[in-house]
Amino acid sequence: MSTKHGFYYKEGHEERLFIDSTPVKQVIDRLSSPPTPFILYSLNQFQHNVNTYQHALNDLAPIRARLSYSMKANYNPHLLSILKSSKVMLTTVSGGEMQLALSNGFEPSKIIFNGNGKTDESIQMAIESGVLLNVDSLFDLEVILKYARQLNKIANVLIRVNPILGDSNVHAYNTTASKTSKFGTSIDDLESIYKLIEDNHDKWIRLFGFHCHLGSTISNTQVIVECVEKMIKLFDMKRFHHLRFLNIGGGLNIDYKRYANRTANEPEEHISIPTIEDYVQAIKQPLQSIPNSIEIIVEPGRSLVANTCVIITRVLGQKQTGPIRQLIVDASMTECIRPALYQAYHHIDTVISSPQEERIAYDIVGPVCESGDFLGRERCLPKILQRGDFLAIFDTGAYCSSMSSNYNMRPRPAEYTLDEHEQIKVLKKRETNEDLLRTYCID
Amino acid sequence: MSTKHGFYYKEGHEERLFIDSTPVKQVIDRLSSPPTPFILYSLNQFQHNVNTYQHALNDLAPIRARLSYSMKANYNPHLLSILKSSKVMLTTVSGGEMQLALSNGFEPSKIIFNGNGKTDESIQMAIESGVLLNVDSLFDLEVILKYARQLNKIANVLIRVNPILGDSNVHAYNTTASKTSKFGTSIDDLESIYKLIEDNHDKWIRLFGFHCHLGSTISNTQVIVECVEKMIKLFDMKRFHHLRFLNIGGGLNIDYKRYANRTANEPEEHISIPTIEDYVQAIKQPLQSIPNSIEIIVEPGRSLVANTCVIITRVLGQKQTGPIRQLIVDASMTECIRPALYQAYHHIDTVISSPQEERIAYDIVGPVCESGDFLGRERCLPKILQRGDFLAIFDTGAYCSSMSSNYNMRPRPAEYTLDEHEQIKVLKKRETNEDLLRTYCID
Repeated sequence: MSTKHGFYYKEGHEERLFIDSTPVKQVIDRLSSPPTPFILYSLNQFQHNVNTYQHALNDLAPIRARLSYSMKANYNPHLLSILKSSKVMLTTVSGGEMQLALSNGFEPSKIIFNGNGKTDESIQMAIESGVLLNVDSLFDLEVILKYARQLNKIANVLIRVNPILGDSNVHAYNTTASKTSKFGTSIDDLESIYKLIEDNHDKWIRLFGFHCHLGSTISNTQVIVECVEKMIKLFDMKRFHHLRFLNIGGGLNIDYKRYANRTANEPEEHISIPTIEDYVQAIKQPLQSIPNSIEIIVEPGRSLVANTCVIITRVLGQKQTGPIRQLIVDASMTECIRPALYQAYHHIDTVISSPQEERIAYDIVGPVCESGDFLGRERCLPKILQRGDFLAIFDTGAYCSSMSSNYNMRPRPAEYTLDEHEQIKVLKKRETNEDLLRTYCID
Repeated sequence: MSTKHGFYYKEGHEERLFIDSTPVKQVIDRLSSPPTPFILYSLNQFQHNVNTYQHALNDLAPIRARLSYSMKANYNPHLLSILKSSKVMLTTVSGGEMQLALSNGFEPSKIIFNGNGKTDESIQMAIESGVLLNVDSLFDLEVILKYARQLNKIANVLIRVNPILGDSNVHAYNTTASKTSKFGTSIDDLESIYKLIEDNHDKWIRLFGFHCHLGSTISNTQVIVECVEKMIKLFDMKRFHHLRFLNIGGGLNIDYKRYANRTANEPEEHISIPTIEDYVQAIKQPLQSIPNSIEIIVEPGRSLVANTCVIITRVLGQKQTGPIRQLIVDASMTECIRPALYQAYHHIDTVISSPQEERIAYDIVGPVCESGDFLGRERCLPKILQRGDFLAIFDTGAYCSSMSSNYNMRPRPAEYTLDEHEQIKVLKKRETNEDLLRTYCID
């Protein structure tokens, strides 16, 4: 692996954005007039993130801890091969994700299948192949039992518990453990699930552990500590002797604003985001009281993959609308819906610029015919930006490609990376108009 | 065309949802265990909506009026063939949409290309083929002029004016004419555009008219009247002698809540939505003062197509979460993002039920691992609903299929209709896992 990884600025006469050891401008030039937007991955950054997590988790020793990637963040198969060779598990949320995990050679015992509404087909696939199932609710367990009997197989399950805890800083759509959340079963309601498992234990079902999930932009480790404390009390080894996993879902946030002051209209207060090391230090204490045989599974998605991508977009033009200076770019909510859906911040910056350039505040919007199609508000960028100039939208590795759409008949973008010789490698081709019409049955 | 069209309930011993003259349950049975969700179209309803609009617009005589369908609402090519045979124009917002319109045989002069950020390729395509271009801003006009010169062709344009008007009941994301909207040029700023057109008129450019757009869920005709009054003043026939079109964008809302009291926990106040007839009556008066030679173009999308579809979904189960009874269905934000993105209401109801059944209030949520994945809150539906029962999500013809995604690796659904013999016809096949991975370059 190259010593340099990820996306960063080198300052000097010109400020240049780098991917690994290569200026992004050089990548663009080598692609020669690439259609924009496109997505650029630093797989070195991804490998680094995986290594950092695994290294930090080793610190929990003698407690064993496993890393499981939350595939919904980004299911690019090239990420999966890195994960496989690093022996990371996968957390899947649909039959499609599970099938992709299996076909990429992940051992079924290294795949978790989670979800509040599993289809019959996906439950059968999980039981037949031996994937670990997170039981979300009583009805979910009933369907799992039905198919275990029908297939004459034992289903290996964890119970997803709703610990009713949350980080008040998290957007409601990213919170998964509120009192009214659609996910999991509250601790008070577990008895009916326990009973049904006891009635079928070792025959059709094996309870391997418990899963909880606090949402995906956690910035407060205290919530995780409280969660671990609540979860540990559930390990009644006498009642369920296969208990082996405590699966702590709920990913850390990443520092989406770490570059924000480069383009901020007014300096912003910096909110510090806990690192995986902080996370491990935080849960170490409550984990002391867990039985030795229990392994911890942590399930990050965003914090493993978000900072591994930028979207490269071209400026289409500038215009003044009342008090607002608009910068229109060719990326949009179809590649990055997070600003529209969660009012999320993504840093947007130049690929190359001079520190001497005059800067003005822009609203950065896309070309989609929809007022919700904005990417950033009040961002200070060079006044001279003009049609054809390139910008980078940062931290678009998680919940961008995987949530993308073809709204306005926009093709989903190409995805590139640099290989070990710093050569451009195509990870995903840009869609064609034909791709968009492929499933229509035309007379 | 069948006398019956669209989706409606027949009441009796059982309440049955119909599509045209056929019970929806019968369609489901004939599909025999179809994967859900799927989308069911009443193309008869679509034809009826087109006819109603055209009939109402005739009432503007002697003023001529044309109907132009806003393709971004739903670009299913089967809709386009109905529009073509009904001589409806198309309003497109991307190169992809324009290309689809052209390849479906629409005359270029019957296609409008609109957008605040047009790419070089799409501008060239529009000029070369003779499509009408809506000039959004000064920079947009400069690029159009550049390519008209380069291609040695005249670009036929309308100017998109921001009338700075709006309906305060409309969600901010559906408002397109606020003071800070990203679309169009305000009346005060038109002079620089006029100048550039004058300098090139009849050589590289012809100004055919003006376009305005008020957003897409207008419920208040008074806003449209004010808009028409403002727009008419722009027709300075001496200065620009080709002026011919007043393109009034901004679609009417539809009555998404017309069935709401069937499932309302408490009776809701009904807000009446103006019909196309109300719309025509409203604009008739201000249009008296327009020159005889000017034609009106109206550009509905939602109000032509929204009520032509239901999404058919299966119940996956029920569970209690604190005070909330959750009904988990297999449709989600990936097929219908409007509740998550705009807190939009879609009516959700049974396909077949008995009026005697006890009803309880549910939150209706999908299976996607995301708290934003909800479809309806506090809807009263039968208490006995269980796994496998079918529900219909109403009015999903507009901004559902066209905004759909593959989040959680969910395949986009099949789309069906009934042909003139009431036989099932496949409009679009359900995606396969292979379709989702088609553009990835696997080593």
